[in-house]
Amino acid sequence: MTEREQNQTKAQSAPVVAVVLAAGFGTRFDENNPKQLVSVGGRPIVCWSIEAFESNPRVSDIIVVVNARVNDMVNTLIDENGYGKVRAIVPGGEERVDSTLAALELLKQAGVPGNAKILIHDSVRPFVARSSIDGCIDALDRFEAATVAFASTDTVLLTEDLGDRKVVRAVPDRPDTFRAQTPQAFRFDTINKAYELAAADPDFHPTDDTRVVVDYLPDTPVAIVEGSETNLKITTQADMPIAEGIAAKLTGRSAAAAGEEAAKQEAKARMRAVFAEAAAEMRRH
Amino acid sequence: MTEREQNQTKAQSAPVVAVVLAAGFGTRFDENNPKQLVSVGGRPIVCWSIEAFESNPRVSDIIVVVNARVNDMVNTLIDENGYGKVRAIVPGGEERVDSTLAALELLKQAGVPGNAKILIHDSVRPFVARSSIDGCIDALDRFEAATVAFASTDTVLLTEDLGDRKVVRAVPDRPDTFRAQTPQAFRFDTINKAYELAAADPDFHPTDDTRVVVDYLPDTPVAIVEGSETNLKITTQADMPIAEGIAAKLTGRSAAAAGEEAAKQEAKARMRAVFAEAAAEMRRH
Repeated sequence: MTEREQNQTKAQSAPVVAVVLAAGFGTRFDENNPKQLVSVGGRPIVCWSIEAFESNPRVSDIIVVVNARVNDMVNTLIDENGYGKVRAIVPGGEERVDSTLAALELLKQAGVPGNAKILIHDSVRPFVARSSIDGCIDALDRFEAATVAFASTDTVLLTEDLGDRKVVRAVPDRPDTFRAQTPQAFRFDTINKAYELAAADPDFHPTDDTRVVVDYLPDTPVAIVEGSETNLKITTQADMPIAEGIAAKLTGRSAAAAGEEAAKQEAKARMRAVFAEAAAEMRRH
Repeated sequence: MTEREQNQTKAQSAPVVAVVLAAGFGTRFDENNPKQLVSVGGRPIVCWSIEAFESNPRVSDIIVVVNARVNDMVNTLIDENGYGKVRAIVPGGEERVDSTLAALELLKQAGVPGNAKILIHDSVRPFVARSSIDGCIDALDRFEAATVAFASTDTVLLTEDLGDRKVVRAVPDRPDTFRAQTPQAFRFDTINKAYELAAADPDFHPTDDTRVVVDYLPDTPVAIVEGSETNLKITTQADMPIAEGIAAKLTGRSAAAAGEEAAKQEAKARMRAVFAEAAAEMRRH
């Protein structure tokens, strides 16, 4: 830890908790291969995401939200890699919002204070920059909520349905259009309050934590924290070559070497998954 | 031409004019290498764009808008490749809007009828799909304006400035957010009228032709035509590996072969540019 980092750690009065959401099923990726476990640059995607927070001295605790399918494997990876800040591995829910709520519930039960800084991150954004995480933590000194976002290079069109066809309703100024990334960060009290208000609304179907604050606490400004093009969300197989390219750059290896290494790691991961399944099978008998 | 194509051509009562905008300076790409002339998959980017319309039997005419720097080279490429539908190569202006206006002015002088279908396309989107071009032509049978756009996979945030910081103003429903691509298509009368109204507004600085219609003819719906992820805009060098990958897929060659071919073509293009410059120099003396 550098002196500056030590000072930053000392100056932090509130805990900084990262919630890594790894409960998605990623049906658009590959039904038989949960994307959060796929290796990129020789490391499972979920490990990249956890390590972004594990290695940041300003983050005090990590919660990982999983589904039943990846639970054993994520547990094994956390053990093997010795991620010491991971306090709990929580089962998530069907929708993204259910997973966020499961993590918030656990933090309540654990007695986390209301001024804690909660950083909610999609595990399938493995390459989040240190500066974006730090930016969230800093923004919460002045704002109750913040989100990493990347300025849109394309003109955004807002549409409406004209019966069978979509038509353009408005074209916002390009400098005022951003693509949401993660982490999305909140003071613990604020995100809890927003979700409480939202729960009372029968039309509540958010796909995004920031939106819960924007819609239900409209007087609470959500600050934009600078993201990056490389903080991509891995959604389909088509994203993998791009991801391998970024991983190779970050690890300073050639893309070809990264590819080979990825293949090796994937074979290992598959093998481990088979063992885990066999072990589970044995426990049932 | 297939029978279906012949029927479509016969059924078209209005001319279909493609305006290919190739007057950008692309300073974010490489100051010394205009991106519209860079080769991808063995072909200069501007050629891909022109050919998308040249090869479409429903397009009757093509106008190419250039700047002084690429003028000679684009002329040479059009001659060499025998693009028979190119009616004029027009000098553009400083801003994108000036280039559109230059093309519209020429079409007025040429006596193009008011019901003509005008498809305005960025030359640096080389991989526009046939279905998107056809979709524009079809949409103009029912609408006065249409634009190719791609559904946003990211949540879009609309922001406002809070003094020194941007904050989120609204989070539109994701299914109602699209990223504008090109072509953007208009009945000739409609786009002319929108630009006339816009010209009277001192605050007029559009970056997008669709926006001119949305802002100045708010009662004229602009239809969304389905774009594609591959219809990317080449903006920076970082887009080139992605572009080579798409080109390789489209031409059915391996990416490696495509890369080699691209290098060869680029060397040729550079050589031609040097000759063109030398020729221009000679003319001046």
